Amino acid sequence: MTDRILTINAGSSSIKLALFAATPMLPMLVRGQIEGIGAAPRLVLRAPDGTVLDQHAIEPARVSDHASALDALLASLAPHLGRDLVAAVGHRVVHGGATFVAPIAVGDTVMSALRALEPLAPLHQPHNLAGIEAARRAFPSALQVACFDTAFHRTQPWVSDTYALPRAYYERGVRRYGFHGLSYESVMARLALDAPDVARGRLVLAHLGNGASLCAVSGSRAQATTMGFSPLDGLPMGTRTGQIDPGVLLYLMTEDGLDAAGLADLLNRRSGMLGLSGLSNDVRTLEAAGTAEASGALDYFVAHTVREIGGLAATLGGLDGLVFSGGIGENAWRLRARIVEALGFLGVDLDVAANRRSDPVVSIPGSRVVARIVPADEEAAIARHTAAFARSERP
Amino acid sequence: MTDRILTINAGSSSIKLALFAATPMLPMLVRGQIEGIGAAPRLVLRAPDGTVLDQHAIEPARVSDHASALDALLASLAPHLGRDLVAAVGHRVVHGGATFVAPIAVGDTVMSALRALEPLAPLHQPHNLAGIEAARRAFPSALQVACFDTAFHRTQPWVSDTYALPRAYYERGVRRYGFHGLSYESVMARLALDAPDVARGRLVLAHLGNGASLCAVSGSRAQATTMGFSPLDGLPMGTRTGQIDPGVLLYLMTEDGLDAAGLADLLNRRSGMLGLSGLSNDVRTLEAAGTAEASGALDYFVAHTVREIGGLAATLGGLDGLVFSGGIGENAWRLRARIVEALGFLGVDLDVAANRRSDPVVSIPGSRVVARIVPADEEAAIARHTAAFARSERP
Repeated sequence: MTDRILTINAGSSSIKLALFAATPMLPMLVRGQIEGIGAAPRLVLRAPDGTVLDQHAIEPARVSDHASALDALLASLAPHLGRDLVAAVGHRVVHGGATFVAPIAVGDTVMSALRALEPLAPLHQPHNLAGIEAARRAFPSALQVACFDTAFHRTQPWVSDTYALPRAYYERGVRRYGFHGLSYESVMARLALDAPDVARGRLVLAHLGNGASLCAVSGSRAQATTMGFSPLDGLPMGTRTGQIDPGVLLYLMTEDGLDAAGLADLLNRRSGMLGLSGLSNDVRTLEAAGTAEASGALDYFVAHTVREIGGLAATLGGLDGLVFSGGIGENAWRLRARIVEALGFLGVDLDVAANRRSDPVVSIPGSRVVARIVPADEEAAIARHTAAFARSERP
Repeated sequence: MTDRILTINAGSSSIKLALFAATPMLPMLVRGQIEGIGAAPRLVLRAPDGTVLDQHAIEPARVSDHASALDALLASLAPHLGRDLVAAVGHRVVHGGATFVAPIAVGDTVMSALRALEPLAPLHQPHNLAGIEAARRAFPSALQVACFDTAFHRTQPWVSDTYALPRAYYERGVRRYGFHGLSYESVMARLALDAPDVARGRLVLAHLGNGASLCAVSGSRAQATTMGFSPLDGLPMGTRTGQIDPGVLLYLMTEDGLDAAGLADLLNRRSGMLGLSGLSNDVRTLEAAGTAEASGALDYFVAHTVREIGGLAATLGGLDGLVFSGGIGENAWRLRARIVEALGFLGVDLDVAANRRSDPVVSIPGSRVVARIVPADEEAAIARHTAAFARSERP
């Protein structure tokens, strides 16, 4: 009977959890997720190697909210937990605002502070907090730890953190928070083990998935990022525009009478590669389609990712490493090849065969800039934070 | 008695004009401007070397609109025009939309088409067109030629021209038009004379003034630019934000109830270096002030200009030349030094003394990337276009 660490990642219609042994190496024991909350819920529980341990659909009425979804997941998890104690639960929380620059134990006061941040991330924060509430009820004696997707970026200098608005807007919280921080933390932790020299250099971390962003790192600290106040800016994404002239919004407000909800729907859900292709937000589908529109969407993704990486390389004054993670970054070798080859002028030299195999290193041995693939593991980052917090809280 | 070419650049509260001899070298004869239209109008007329030929305040009631302002300017110009014939009048027009990719003679049909573009540039286009109307009345037999600030960018590839919105938005004209095109044309024309090898290379042209943008050029053709649909995006400016997360606009609509007019006022007039410094939009004032806020505003300008130049260098696959123009680009040597030095990793090596003197070449002789200053001369670009048009129209 040893202590356990549970991690919870609650999204809008899904909850992911993972169970870790609270021993120094923090081995993962089992992970599970429930998708389709409120619609057609489906649960799956897997061993660390991916073997399915449990998988079934659930009566929609039984899983109507995050509390009941967590109950269902925990019931499925129970045989694997046995009589072991869940000492601490770590939560992914998308927004820590300007205040929370590191993980924090959640009591009533912190919970209120996190609720106050909901207007900054109205599509995500309420679900994250629902997960915390559910976990507090399920494990009333466990330590609850909130881990923030914004925290990694809080070391960035003021010029990377502000917009060119009147100063008062920065003070009230209109800042370039940045996101995907737990992914970046997990990538940096992995890199420190696998390639410590690279980890200490000037890096652009490319988290390329359905959501996509870049982070410039030097001295292991975040210097700038492409997402800003919201997860809408920067790189083009599956269904999000990425960078767009604010003048377009003013024009659509005036000419089409769009309000904030209409604009948010257009820019978040109907744009990006889906909008450009008219077909899909999924790179695999677009690569297979081969239509002019699908190819155009991929061309756009490559061109603007290259441009944004070049921008962050300039912020860093040059590049030592380029690190890919996320579903596209880890798997879409054709796009990765095009991006790396376009950046040859920065000193990165693609290893065509290694890239085709999605090897850990995709640059040739002599390349001045190293290009690597490091799978993101947000659950591991949350578990590490939570375990460290649990140790420091112990009398 | 030789033919004359007149150029007119009509802004919101000012009109600039210049008179050229319609001979092969197109020498400028006299230039003038009237500022404070509708408020406290003031007229000045200068010789090409800057000598003041005429200067006086005007009764506000006499110059209440662009037609009366042009009349006042032409009255002041009359002694210099004598009995020479104004064969053609060239106009700066900010927006040519997707249709006008080159200068065009303006008759009633084109005038209607230009009016239809007003929603794309509501702050500028109506004034430009008022200038054309006034000139048509003043010189009914002269050829009127519209020269567009967007035209230079129309060679850019589709990935640089579109946003990641549903395709229909591109078709209806939501595009990255880009601006400052007449300035870029004049810079490229000058560069082709002074440094033809550089002109053929991969260039970032930096038009840095109270409005500021960059243009990536290769093979003498525009490849990408930082301003997009409107003159609001890209670099931070005197009073404009430049690049900003669209999520900030959604937030301010929801939280502060700002509408399009309120947002446009905030982002266009109260932001940028003025907003960050709380003091001024003028770099000279900010450099002299030495406060933390003023220095912060300049730091922001440098950091984001460096980042955007790096982005365009990546779009070009590397850089051969960096060219500064505009009031800041031509004169603010401290900022120029910081920008060039931060880009050293691209192969540009600052000549500290030459930069201090604002010499035409500000990189050292051995620098792989050449950095130059080329004063923008929009009037010359308009005059060249207009003269060429007048020649081609001649029977």
